[in-house]
Amino acid sequence: MKIGLIGLGKMGYNLSLNLMDNHHEVVAYDVNKEAVEKLSNEGATGAFTVEELVNELPLSPKVVWIMVPAGEVTENVITELKELLSEGDIIIDGGNSNYKESVRRAQDLQEKGIYFFDVGTSGGMEGARNGACTMIGGDAEVFRTIEPIFNDICVENGFMYAGKSGSGHFLKMVHNGVEYGMMQSIAEGFEVLEKSQFDFDYEAVARVWNNGSVVRSWLMELTENAFSKDPKLDSIKGVMQSSGEGKWTVETALDLQTATPVIALSLMMRYRSLEEDTFTGKVVAALRNEFGGHGVVNK
Amino acid sequence: MKIGLIGLGKMGYNLSLNLMDNHHEVVAYDVNKEAVEKLSNEGATGAFTVEELVNELPLSPKVVWIMVPAGEVTENVITELKELLSEGDIIIDGGNSNYKESVRRAQDLQEKGIYFFDVGTSGGMEGARNGACTMIGGDAEVFRTIEPIFNDICVENGFMYAGKSGSGHFLKMVHNGVEYGMMQSIAEGFEVLEKSQFDFDYEAVARVWNNGSVVRSWLMELTENAFSKDPKLDSIKGVMQSSGEGKWTVETALDLQTATPVIALSLMMRYRSLEEDTFTGKVVAALRNEFGGHGVVNK
Amino acid sequence: MKIGLIGLGKMGYNLSLNLMDNHHEVVAYDVNKEAVEKLSNEGATGAFTVEELVNELPLSPKVVWIMVPAGEVTENVITELKELLSEGDIIIDGGNSNYKESVRRAQDLQEKGIYFFDVGTSGGMEGARNGACTMIGGDAEVFRTIEPIFNDICVENGFMYAGKSGSGHFLKMVHNGVEYGMMQSIAEGFEVLEKSQFDFDYEAVARVWNNGSVVRSWLMELTENAFSKDPKLDSIKGVMQSSGEGKWTVETALDLQTATPVIALSLMMRYRSLEEDTFTGKVVAALRNEFGGHGVVNK
Amino acid sequence: MKIGLIGLGKMGYNLSLNLMDNHHEVVAYDVNKEAVEKLSNEGATGAFTVEELVNELPLSPKVVWIMVPAGEVTENVITELKELLSEGDIIIDGGNSNYKESVRRAQDLQEKGIYFFDVGTSGGMEGARNGACTMIGGDAEVFRTIEPIFNDICVENGFMYAGKSGSGHFLKMVHNGVEYGMMQSIAEGFEVLEKSQFDFDYEAVARVWNNGSVVRSWLMELTENAFSKDPKLDSIKGVMQSSGEGKWTVETALDLQTATPVIALSLMMRYRSLEEDTFTGKVVAALRNEFGGHGVVNK
Repeated sequence: MKIGLIGLGKMGYNLSLNLMDNHHEVVAYDVNKEAVEKLSNEGATGAFTVEELVNELPLSPKVVWIMVPAGEVTENVITELKELLSEGDIIIDGGNSNYKESVRRAQDLQEKGIYFFDVGTSGGMEGARNGACTMIGGDAEVFRTIEPIFNDICVENGFMYAGKSGSGHFLKMVHNGVEYGMMQSIAEGFEVLEKSQFDFDYEAVARVWNNGSVVRSWLMELTENAFSKDPKLDSIKGVMQSSGEGKWTVETALDLQTATPVIALSLMMRYRSLEEDTFTGKVVAALRNEFGGHGVVNK
Repeated sequence: MKIGLIGLGKMGYNLSLNLMDNHHEVVAYDVNKEAVEKLSNEGATGAFTVEELVNELPLSPKVVWIMVPAGEVTENVITELKELLSEGDIIIDGGNSNYKESVRRAQDLQEKGIYFFDVGTSGGMEGARNGACTMIGGDAEVFRTIEPIFNDICVENGFMYAGKSGSGHFLKMVHNGVEYGMMQSIAEGFEVLEKSQFDFDYEAVARVWNNGSVVRSWLMELTENAFSKDPKLDSIKGVMQSSGEGKWTVETALDLQTATPVIALSLMMRYRSLEEDTFTGKVVAALRNEFGGHGVVNK
Repeated sequence: MKIGLIGLGKMGYNLSLNLMDNHHEVVAYDVNKEAVEKLSNEGATGAFTVEELVNELPLSPKVVWIMVPAGEVTENVITELKELLSEGDIIIDGGNSNYKESVRRAQDLQEKGIYFFDVGTSGGMEGARNGACTMIGGDAEVFRTIEPIFNDICVENGFMYAGKSGSGHFLKMVHNGVEYGMMQSIAEGFEVLEKSQFDFDYEAVARVWNNGSVVRSWLMELTENAFSKDPKLDSIKGVMQSSGEGKWTVETALDLQTATPVIALSLMMRYRSLEEDTFTGKVVAALRNEFGGHGVVNK
Repeated sequence: MKIGLIGLGKMGYNLSLNLMDNHHEVVAYDVNKEAVEKLSNEGATGAFTVEELVNELPLSPKVVWIMVPAGEVTENVITELKELLSEGDIIIDGGNSNYKESVRRAQDLQEKGIYFFDVGTSGGMEGARNGACTMIGGDAEVFRTIEPIFNDICVENGFMYAGKSGSGHFLKMVHNGVEYGMMQSIAEGFEVLEKSQFDFDYEAVARVWNNGSVVRSWLMELTENAFSKDPKLDSIKGVMQSSGEGKWTVETALDLQTATPVIALSLMMRYRSLEEDTFTGKVVAALRNEFGGHGVVNK
């Protein structure tokens, strides 16, 4: 199939190579011309505007995969595509868009007869390159047209038609919420080891936990990799950034009146890690001093 | 009543003055001779050994109030008193002993016919001086003998015979667990204010919240006091120490298979505040780098 | 002062009486005519439409206090008032509106020169009647015009000009978040008591904790009241409803990247209490069965 | 090697078969004679007392693997073995003993020159049968004698000499803490899906999440298995039992002043699931009624 691909960042570039490995033709566009040229050298057709990309695609239907930052950039690209595409054409948003936006966009594009698929993509850069995991929301009938793409670029059993519009990004969002919880669980375990009376080899611990144990998982394999490079992680600080899906998961849980204490706390401990000192701590310390005369640590 | 008082720290010294204000005689002992002398000047009878203190007390029954650090010191004092006291005598442990220890000590002292009362004391130094809050476990009948003491030294409605041995310290332990949760609640609220787009006067906030609102409380009054001295708490660090009762409350909750998420988290956020960086954070940061190529903060 | 009051529910009705006690004139409107008539009998001027209410008020400036459900009802009333009021007039929203709405409404009304004050009100029905606690956001200069109202209807030190528009409702929102945490703290404490080996009199516990202890507070007084009516709370179920401010507090904390574990968990335990069984529980039980052959509880 | 195996429950029986598959001789004892006879039919030498088992083992050194319930049963077996074994002999505790007990037992057995290894075993029944995961604490030198056993019965890279006595059971304890967190994370994710506006096929979700995604793991595979048998888990209740390691992990974290909010909450949500109604909920509901007149749900 000939596929338009907009966005050649870490994920989009690898995905393009993956598509071409699987004998798809890629027409590629990115605001960064160097990325377009680099991918052209790998066999893609380069486009230097979105319009050029759309014109390069065959009729009935044109298929465009978007892999750009969620939010404003995605919105702008889709707005431009809506102008350029026609009834029956297909837009695939493979980025980390909020599922509510995807529901809205699908409805909006439907006005013009354009089909929209919201595709959550997991597996990191390596997955994008060699076999991703995707969760797809959109029209069930039309999905059959693009199913071969997913069959090719994903690992075995690694794609799922999830349901109506929004369900793909919803599933990816919750996947990331689960991921936050699993990462925090593993990390807390290692902190208990670190504080203990024993002197563990963390790389060896991650390796044994990843072979035959109940907690064996890709994240544990990655833990082993991380410790193999830096046995005590002495070179980095414990600052835990987050993108948006964990927060959206908690917000969604609140909207659904669902108790998700572990996912919520995983997120909040990330926020806590962004600060050296907290106002919460100051207030508690000041209160202990007020009622009990307990000492405070002065700055 | 003539009462032996062992331990003239912040709490014990103030309690002695409180007892004397209420026309009780105090025979006081502390390892720190200066404290004994200072209290003697206030009208107490000083004793320079536990034995001397016991000998100064009238027979039938001798009443000794212990106000020393929980654990080993309390254990040693009680062991010594067990030797010196006789059937019918009374030991009051007004410190923050673990209730399990108090159950054991009561049983142990019963062998010799000595009555043991475990007394949780709240209200801080000011309470000890001018009107404390006490929760008392031990023999219900014998309690009547010492009830006048509590009637005198506590604020109105400020003492409670809680039940059999251990119940007094148990109640104080849980009181402190509740206190941890309330303090953390207040402190988190102020942190949200601090991070907000608004520019609040925290002393004024604490004052208004302490007058007429649902959250009015002594802790809110103390919050107002703290902000009146240091409007943004700029002079202190948010290091939240803890003694033992919060931890015991959580351990007890675990033993009773009781979910106490708020008390548990209040405690854990205190532990978190003791560290500048965490191993948990390092592991999560390293994992994000492994699977997504996300940047880490190097040391 | 002559004040228009829209909304004669539990809070608005009591507030009207409070205003009249303090020699203000009240022009009252509610969709429920009976409430209007009832308040007329107490001395208010009844109005049967918003227009009628506005016409009853003197010029320069007209002051209208809204005390209706947050969201759509508040929005509709304000939209109608915007039509009817003129430059220099004042709208006070005393309900539990989301502070973001209040920021927007203030800006919107400013177009027409109408001043908007967002007023968070605490203290329950009793407070509304006899002395409330209020936190007020809006124009600092114009606030002086209405300050006497707050001076009259609030307890001493019970009102605060908090800052620019939105700050009043923001402060009330966070107040409620703190309230959630304090309530959950107290409640967890009593659950530990309930599961313990001791047999406590909970009314007595709440009383002693409310006299001289560190956790003394209005909520503890209310706890005592509740136990005085039903010693073990046998007559009710532990279903914890919530309105919206606790959720907003957590959402705001997430937006501000602030860790508020205790407030978040207080909210989530409320959600958990709405269910008899959980899907989370089923998944964990099924997993334990899968890997360890551990028994499950069949329905 | 000829190995004594005490305890033929789910784990011990499978482990014996595993050992024999790998050409070890097993002398087996269990209080349940049928289990002994059944295993004898599989090629083991049956013993009907611990003494008989010990006598069947060759000298220098005798190796006995214990696989019985932690606590009293393990204690009794070790006490009996201490009498029967001699200097240089080896006891392996493969059960879920508390690491503190293992430290104590190792010291105690050292008096008589008996070597003790605390071995945490993971991987469930299937692992015990076909390739387990083990973490081993004890004397580093003597470990070489028994290393071939672990090499045979574990999956590749599936065993680890962890360090001095106690470290094996410590590592297994923390492993289980991590497991609690990971299970709760997965389960919370599915609850969000269940409450959402979408209609997901959970077996398909677990499958896609287990192929190529970041959260792929054995637990996700088991989740798929569980949903394949009961698509909505309609047949079971969400009652989450726990054995002891999760609780020990939290207790250890508290002793080490380590914040492990996710592991702690995973445990507490299990406790919460054991109850239909909570006293916490009653207190909060009663308080809401007291201050706001909010309705309660009567029983």
